[in-house]
Amino acid sequence: MKLNFKNDYNTIGDIKILNKLIEYKDEKNIGYGEDYHSKELNDMVNSIIGKNSDTYILSGGTITNVIGLSQILKYPYEAVITGENSHINVHETGAIEASSHKIILTPLKNGKIDISKIKDTYNRFTDNHMVLPKCLYLSDANELGLTYTIEELKEISNICKELNLYFFIDGARLSQSLVSEGYTLKDIASLCDMFYLGGTKNGLPFGELLVIINDELKSNFKFLLKNKLGLLAKGFVGAIMFKEYLKDNYYLTLASKALTYANKIRDRLNKYLIYPNKTNQIFIKVSNDIFDKLNEQVEFEIWEVSDSYKVIRLVTSYNTNDDEINELFNIFDKLGL
Amino acid sequence: MKLNFKNDYNTIGDIKILNKLIEYKDEKNIGYGEDYHSKELNDMVNSIIGKNSDTYILSGGTITNVIGLSQILKYPYEAVITGENSHINVHETGAIEASSHKIILTPLKNGKIDISKIKDTYNRFTDNHMVLPKCLYLSDANELGLTYTIEELKEISNICKELNLYFFIDGARLSQSLVSEGYTLKDIASLCDMFYLGGTKNGLPFGELLVIINDELKSNFKFLLKNKLGLLAKGFVGAIMFKEYLKDNYYLTLASKALTYANKIRDRLNKYLIYPNKTNQIFIKVSNDIFDKLNEQVEFEIWEVSDSYKVIRLVTSYNTNDDEINELFNIFDKLGL
Amino acid sequence: MKLNFKNDYNTIGDIKILNKLIEYKDEKNIGYGEDYHSKELNDMVNSIIGKNSDTYILSGGTITNVIGLSQILKYPYEAVITGENSHINVHETGAIEASSHKIILTPLKNGKIDISKIKDTYNRFTDNHMVLPKCLYLSDANELGLTYTIEELKEISNICKELNLYFFIDGARLSQSLVSEGYTLKDIASLCDMFYLGGTKNGLPFGELLVIINDELKSNFKFLLKNKLGLLAKGFVGAIMFKEYLKDNYYLTLASKALTYANKIRDRLNKYLIYPNKTNQIFIKVSNDIFDKLNEQVEFEIWEVSDSYKVIRLVTSYNTNDDEINELFNIFDKLGL
Amino acid sequence: MKLNFKNDYNTIGDIKILNKLIEYKDEKNIGYGEDYHSKELNDMVNSIIGKNSDTYILSGGTITNVIGLSQILKYPYEAVITGENSHINVHETGAIEASSHKIILTPLKNGKIDISKIKDTYNRFTDNHMVLPKCLYLSDANELGLTYTIEELKEISNICKELNLYFFIDGARLSQSLVSEGYTLKDIASLCDMFYLGGTKNGLPFGELLVIINDELKSNFKFLLKNKLGLLAKGFVGAIMFKEYLKDNYYLTLASKALTYANKIRDRLNKYLIYPNKTNQIFIKVSNDIFDKLNEQVEFEIWEVSDSYKVIRLVTSYNTNDDEINELFNIFDKLGL
Repeated sequence: MKLNFKNDYNTIGDIKILNKLIEYKDEKNIGYGEDYHSKELNDMVNSIIGKNSDTYILSGGTITNVIGLSQILKYPYEAVITGENSHINVHETGAIEASSHKIILTPLKNGKIDISKIKDTYNRFTDNHMVLPKCLYLSDANELGLTYTIEELKEISNICKELNLYFFIDGARLSQSLVSEGYTLKDIASLCDMFYLGGTKNGLPFGELLVIINDELKSNFKFLLKNKLGLLAKGFVGAIMFKEYLKDNYYLTLASKALTYANKIRDRLNKYLIYPNKTNQIFIKVSNDIFDKLNEQVEFEIWEVSDSYKVIRLVTSYNTNDDEINELFNIFDKLGL
Repeated sequence: MKLNFKNDYNTIGDIKILNKLIEYKDEKNIGYGEDYHSKELNDMVNSIIGKNSDTYILSGGTITNVIGLSQILKYPYEAVITGENSHINVHETGAIEASSHKIILTPLKNGKIDISKIKDTYNRFTDNHMVLPKCLYLSDANELGLTYTIEELKEISNICKELNLYFFIDGARLSQSLVSEGYTLKDIASLCDMFYLGGTKNGLPFGELLVIINDELKSNFKFLLKNKLGLLAKGFVGAIMFKEYLKDNYYLTLASKALTYANKIRDRLNKYLIYPNKTNQIFIKVSNDIFDKLNEQVEFEIWEVSDSYKVIRLVTSYNTNDDEINELFNIFDKLGL
Repeated sequence: MKLNFKNDYNTIGDIKILNKLIEYKDEKNIGYGEDYHSKELNDMVNSIIGKNSDTYILSGGTITNVIGLSQILKYPYEAVITGENSHINVHETGAIEASSHKIILTPLKNGKIDISKIKDTYNRFTDNHMVLPKCLYLSDANELGLTYTIEELKEISNICKELNLYFFIDGARLSQSLVSEGYTLKDIASLCDMFYLGGTKNGLPFGELLVIINDELKSNFKFLLKNKLGLLAKGFVGAIMFKEYLKDNYYLTLASKALTYANKIRDRLNKYLIYPNKTNQIFIKVSNDIFDKLNEQVEFEIWEVSDSYKVIRLVTSYNTNDDEINELFNIFDKLGL
Repeated sequence: MKLNFKNDYNTIGDIKILNKLIEYKDEKNIGYGEDYHSKELNDMVNSIIGKNSDTYILSGGTITNVIGLSQILKYPYEAVITGENSHINVHETGAIEASSHKIILTPLKNGKIDISKIKDTYNRFTDNHMVLPKCLYLSDANELGLTYTIEELKEISNICKELNLYFFIDGARLSQSLVSEGYTLKDIASLCDMFYLGGTKNGLPFGELLVIINDELKSNFKFLLKNKLGLLAKGFVGAIMFKEYLKDNYYLTLASKALTYANKIRDRLNKYLIYPNKTNQIFIKVSNDIFDKLNEQVEFEIWEVSDSYKVIRLVTSYNTNDDEINELFNIFDKLGL
């Protein structure tokens, strides 16, 4: 089997998390998230963020984006603003549109939403022959592993308030932003209307924790969750895992491990880096010759293809270990990287 | 904690299944069901059913019903025929309609679809001011724990062929039908166009195994799966579990255990039974007085409420044990049941 | 050409209405219902009903039902209650479901909604595994030409208020109810949240006048109208027609004409009538022998087919005339009807 | 009232068309497009295009685009490729997305689709995490009044065939292209799979004539038409109008009249023109000072706003006359244009 740096969801899950499933395997619980673990989890979250939120666990990122945004966007003419490279625009097979909503693109700057252009984008929509912008969506960290600073998030939050836009943060890789930027879940919760903390890409077999902050968005969410196919029968499975994940900031421990290894790779490949990110994704530009040789020995994602070069993505995770890094660096050595 | 006979999805999962997750926890796999476990699982299924099917794992019953039927029903005017008490009509919060399709109701007979009425139902749809029936859906076992005999399934299958209807079998509790009626997955696969074998209600933390038999229904299903929110990032988690579930007919072993306990309860409560089913759900009619006392000591589902009586549902599972049954029978003793 | 009593939309339109189009043919107007005719029409309606409504013209009944109900039902889990024989359930090719909403059926009594059962129907929906009833829909007159009395409408209105249901009246043939039951548009507007006054079936080439009474339902309707395909570029065409239609109660004049002829036919065919309605639709039960002979000479709708008899529907309209009635009666004479 | 050059749908309709409605006002016809006029119209179209098409009349452009494309795009992951400035992307309030489909943008060149980039756009879609392109949509003439040459249309048609994309032409203003470019309906029909000939913007009170060429796209369209709210009860009204519209190429006569007046204005305003189109829309760039004065006396569309200038759109139609042009030129004279 090739060395695998393809993504951060290539292993089942962290042993502490899995052991919790063994521990509770015979406990009989009520279904559909009405169990006591789900309640305890919600309390934990509220305690962490210092707010009275509603929390739900969904199976993955796309379904969380779509159902979360469907709660925000009531009518089909209501639209979400985001950048061209965002997950909902590029990698969800049209799931947002399949939920009847248009995605409005706002310009990017160095791979992130250009904050200075949001108002202009909003102001292009002037009458009932065009959609009505109701929400701004971004991922933190985003598809390129880029993170928003706390100042940037505050600025965006203020613009959203001014324009009467809801602010939704896709946190599939939020733990990476937290360990990299140094802000907290409490900070995030104070700035947006809805966000989620990803589990799938940071040590859980599945699961994203959706946190609804704004009271206006809480009503009847359980109906939407079932109607839009997101309600899990054994809600307590996710709740037990997420309690362990949040306990003693274990999600940050897992994310830090991934980040440490990523930083090692970045240090090593410094001159090949093409996005100045600080998270567990490393994008490098290599010649086609190097690419071919790497490709024989390492699983990675091909990001961009041209006649003269290729951009590839390496990803570390909670599960990366020293042996893998050593082996990877040996390969680099042989290739002169 | 009260004795819990509320449903068959009240515990995390069977230990053999969970141990497999521990066993494979560090193996690095490709995402989105493109891994070798998923391929091996598909091969196992094909070997079992003697057909060249496509298999997919989804997180739960409702999402499997909706995405499966969405593959079958291409245009929004295409409709599915089923009985009034079916899961898609009653307990999915309008998810089929939210996917743009009308549910056509056909009469029931003793809680199951009245086979003799299917053609009449179909023939009511005569022009483009009405929907176009394209599929027949049933659950085996159904919401009342009732199973279809092999003869009934063959008859329905023939009617569907004659009327050019696709035949979809919701198998959330199919293992119960298999152990109770004695037919096999191969039988099921020979009679319908698409079915699924449930895991959630028979020992898995989550997961339903969708099997597409009819070649006409295979095309581009992966696109639909992502678009309709069903594609799991860590597809290999489900595949590893389902391989163990199918191996040596372990799904039947688990189902048999539940059935054995259910039969014990049925023997004991014989005169209170109200649906003549042979699976792991037991429906009994009790006086309001008995109900109140039972309700203090046992978790169950309330099925029907009237001034003079109540119908309650008790459910056994792979996880039920002798102690629980003894305790339950002690309670019955005290109540004179 | 056969004598045509097939429906009330079989001729282009009344000459007074059409002449208005000729009269205004060169006047240049603003598009999309922003013109002065549309404003004048809204003022006329408000003056008639004594309320501050918003009015819109849509091309036909189905599109008015679907967009009206889509304004009322925001989320896909919100559902509309109606009777089994209602237009949205039977004759709209699943258009309501294609707009993501389930139709909840409530029992009928003599062809109309059984008012005493509405609460029971509502109360069946108890949790988030079922849809959420948010609206009651009925047609007045309905598919069988039956009308609701003012007392019945008041009772239904009160029940809706009590249950927090919006009340929507499909008035494709409302003019028939008005002339038959003796109540007014003002009465209707005082009892419901949204209704429409049909034009297509009473002398207009096309057009239904949607009246939104409840302020909660007015917001951003123009966006939904465009998004759901109902916004007409030349809104002024419909407005000019409807102004003439409402002026001096011309819609009642047209409807009365249809009703007078219908009553003549009813008097003549008294013993063959099968629905006790008082509007422009006449349902009669005839032997297959009579049916065959009638069918050679008259266009009508076949309503019910059996081995021993048929039910047919004859419909009169604003365009029916004495000659047609005489010719029809001559045919009846020859057939011994 | 101000001189009105705001659009080409600002008057009810041409007198020859309207007189046909008067002429046939008492003829009794079958509903829903099953009448003999609709059949004769279909025959006329087939005779004109030399193909065996299916024709339908819808009320306006947006509904024709959406239902036409919904027939082509069966599954929600199937997407349509078009340019950023296209009507479906900009001016339909998200109606395509509300029908569950994503719009893929392909680069423009001088306001029209850049033909050399279509394949690149198509090739960006590589797996089931992205939508599946199935159709190319363009308007001829487009939103900027620009037309495609016959050579361009042929090239696009060939690319579509090569890529297995359906080719849909929005012909809301197709008559303008026909009189301007000199090709015919037969040419159009030979190159695409589905197109429509607009009536609303060229002398009809309402109505677009959808022509389905490709046999694969004909099946059950009547069901979709009803389900998606486009089926008109009095189909014969549109058919009678379109028969007159097509007879002796009257649609070209009407379009030529509009074009002649547009050319006069273009000749006059030559140095202010900003899009090099040859149809009935004239886009000019004027100083804010001139804009203010023009705006007091003429109704037009504001197209672009900047601190130093404005772009406005003047539109002529079948209904424009010499007096209006003279009056307009007088205003130009006074403003020194």
